[in-house]
Amino acid sequence: MAWDVLSLIGTVAFAVSGAIVAMEVKYDLFGVYILGVVTAFGGGALRNLLIGVHTDTLWEQGFLFKAALISITIIFLSSHNLLSHWEKWGIYFDAIGLAAFAVQGAMFAVELNLPLSAVIVAAVLTGSGGGIIRDLLAGRKPLVFRIEIYGGWAALAGLVIGLGLFEGDVALYIILALTTTLRILSIIYKWRLPFRTMPD
Amino acid sequence: MAWDVLSLIGTVAFAVSGAIVAMEVKYDLFGVYILGVVTAFGGGALRNLLIGVHTDTLWEQGFLFKAALISITIIFLSSHNLLSHWEKWGIYFDAIGLAAFAVQGAMFAVELNLPLSAVIVAAVLTGSGGGIIRDLLAGRKPLVFRIEIYGGWAALAGLVIGLGLFEGDVALYIILALTTTLRILSIIYKWRLPFRTMPD
Amino acid sequence: MAWDVLSLIGTVAFAVSGAIVAMEVKYDLFGVYILGVVTAFGGGALRNLLIGVHTDTLWEQGFLFKAALISITIIFLSSHNLLSHWEKWGIYFDAIGLAAFAVQGAMFAVELNLPLSAVIVAAVLTGSGGGIIRDLLAGRKPLVFRIEIYGGWAALAGLVIGLGLFEGDVALYIILALTTTLRILSIIYKWRLPFRTMPD
Repeated sequence: MAWDVLSLIGTVAFAVSGAIVAMEVKYDLFGVYILGVVTAFGGGALRNLLIGVHTDTLWEQGFLFKAALISITIIFLSSHNLLSHWEKWGIYFDAIGLAAFAVQGAMFAVELNLPLSAVIVAAVLTGSGGGIIRDLLAGRKPLVFRIEIYGGWAALAGLVIGLGLFEGDVALYIILALTTTLRILSIIYKWRLPFRTMPD
Repeated sequence: MAWDVLSLIGTVAFAVSGAIVAMEVKYDLFGVYILGVVTAFGGGALRNLLIGVHTDTLWEQGFLFKAALISITIIFLSSHNLLSHWEKWGIYFDAIGLAAFAVQGAMFAVELNLPLSAVIVAAVLTGSGGGIIRDLLAGRKPLVFRIEIYGGWAALAGLVIGLGLFEGDVALYIILALTTTLRILSIIYKWRLPFRTMPD
Repeated sequence: MAWDVLSLIGTVAFAVSGAIVAMEVKYDLFGVYILGVVTAFGGGALRNLLIGVHTDTLWEQGFLFKAALISITIIFLSSHNLLSHWEKWGIYFDAIGLAAFAVQGAMFAVELNLPLSAVIVAAVLTGSGGGIIRDLLAGRKPLVFRIEIYGGWAALAGLVIGLGLFEGDVALYIILALTTTLRILSIIYKWRLPFRTMPD
């Protein structure tokens, strides 16, 4: 149950986020759909590729694929006025997608009985992979490597789930809400991970 | 039969297109071969990855691999005079590659008895995937998201084939010719898909 | 034996190289770890994808994964003074990684009894794939297509190993040392592959 809900939330949130980025870089209808779909499904595909399970095909995910297409279409057809709202809301959609896919990716690894490190990596890859591919296709440096804490929260969600501290659907939804909140707080208060720059 | 012919046409056309782009961005011999090969085989690899069939290895495609290498070598060794012709012809090679791989990708999905939506996505991925990877490796925003109608024609070819409106090799060659023509007409008359930009 | 040693050398060398590049483009802690890991494991993943063997999961490579994480941590925690040394040494780490993974990739294809052309491609993909993905994630044109001879030496290592001219662990270490040396000599003496540019 939680799996399906998380997948749907993450897919819609990231499809919207990809469509918005495509419009920001002035891509056409084709680009908007491709970036929306790639952002929605890229993280899961990357996780499957690196965790070693056969990639789920888009067709086994027929329902999610339709949900992504409908979401992208709504965004594309929004009025000019609504669009300016979407843009502001873009980071919230992205935060929800990050959290939903981080939790879902961690569940995926837990069900395969993988070690804790694998659970964390699965959470990070699933949560941030789609956004990385989206930014590459939009011709810009991936935001997730530069902005306020992003993959860090996915890793934390993976850690908590991997340690088995919480069980059951309710706990997963709570982790989802917390991860989303932490990401949004990071944006508001400009929390950043440490970084170092090379000497000149 | 049609499968082999389409594969050969698409492979040679995209190998040439990749080699030309590599020379445009001043890559060396190594870069020219890699971009040629990646453009020729990237679309099919992406389709296999996302449609869920084991990636064909380059070695099961030994003949096509050799055809790509020979094509790239001919381009690289062309006289300065010929090169300026290749550059002009680049978009035509690309149009032929798009059409051949779109038709071939759609056939691939039809043979797996996949639903119509899968046939369309397979046509789009196979037709435009190589060009997207080529542009990323050349450090530029993928052209297919910005220029005159590109993936749209691949989708149309996929739709026609997926609906089973036409059967047999001759029909496939006709779709190939029509798709190529539509793409070239798009360039000449600057047909574009709708696009929207974000409010400032 | 040689396999394990080569894997360890290549993994550590490329993890360090990825971490340095991430710091050069001012990525945060998350970006430094991701670029380090992706550079270390990207070449092998690409080779597996294209040579048609199931991608090794990171977990079957648990020891190498830990070695990569520790190397990246050491780099990130280095003093400002040490960092400026790492930067200078970056190209040497990269040269060692290239050579180790080229030899390892060629061995991989030889063990699968693949033809000579496959051995060469496996050497090139494994040796240069990680660096290509690293540069894409850092938002810059892949260096390997532009700088002093790089993939060419990987191809040469693949050719020598594929022809079966040398057998046994000692021979492989000698090829490793020679490939590293040739790459470093290329940098010092600015050897370049031929390249052609398009007419204006």
